[in-house]
Amino acid sequence: MPIHYLEDFAVSQVFKTGRLRVDKEQIFAFARQFDPQPFHIDEEAARQSLFQGLAASGWHTAALTMRLLVDGELKPAGGILGVGFDELSWPRAVRPGDELRAQSEILEVRPSKSRPDRGLVRVRTTTVNQNDETVMMFTGNLLVPKRPALAQKG
Amino acid sequence: MPIHYLEDFAVSQVFKTGRLRVDKEQIFAFARQFDPQPFHIDEEAARQSLFQGLAASGWHTAALTMRLLVDGELKPAGGILGVGFDELSWPRAVRPGDELRAQSEILEVRPSKSRPDRGLVRVRTTTVNQNDETVMMFTGNLLVPKRPALAQKG
Repeated sequence: MPIHYLEDFAVSQVFKTGRLRVDKEQIFAFARQFDPQPFHIDEEAARQSLFQGLAASGWHTAALTMRLLVDGELKPAGGILGVGFDELSWPRAVRPGDELRAQSEILEVRPSKSRPDRGLVRVRTTTVNQNDETVMMFTGNLLVPKRPALAQKG
Repeated sequence: MPIHYLEDFAVSQVFKTGRLRVDKEQIFAFARQFDPQPFHIDEEAARQSLFQGLAASGWHTAALTMRLLVDGELKPAGGILGVGFDELSWPRAVRPGDELRAQSEILEVRPSKSRPDRGLVRVRTTTVNQNDETVMMFTGNLLVPKRPALAQKG
């Protein structure tokens, strides 16, 4: 898998990931540690909640998406370093047995004005389940180094 | 701890949390599962990265913040149900030994136009370390039910 410097990114490129299956025990384990609300840790309470059934914590979906990205095609030099998001949503709950995959589209590539050795790549990542329904979507900026030889000229 | 219905929220209210300490093993454990990049799982690699030392995954900080919130003063009826964020950033790395706490400020309270039994509460949550330095900040909307008796009148 090639490593991508800032110069390798261009608007509308798409990077895919593999798949990850989520089971009930994983949903419980994450939620007990980080988000122990009834609809994430108790099936009966979940049925009576707005979720109408057991649902993964949104932060679990985010963490699983990160794992998909780290193992996927998007390989910025220096790693996947998100500096922040300006849009993040969970349009649909993640359920036990769901199989997730993600896809990242490049929206913008900007060299840094203050730091000649790097830039920002604006990316929209969409996580879908096995029915291609979006379970999470976020748009934000990754910090990506320029190719070292070019940076030395700057 | 009282439960908060939509009618109980007002702009500029502040809800606090307790504290959570993060150690190196927790940073490793989360990162090995969800964000196995060198700067989150290897101290030597982390020293040579942009982080200049071991740093927690941003999603770990998010998950810890959720745990602080669930155990904190903010108790919307029906749970803490985020429908999405429109701003999320990690201004500073979380390091081994850091002790985090969070604070949520109410920015806006809006009854739903289509669903008379609920509304949206816009909240800015700030997570800080033991030196009061912000490590994460996000702004988004929580779905909050109205008090049932009032909803029945509507």
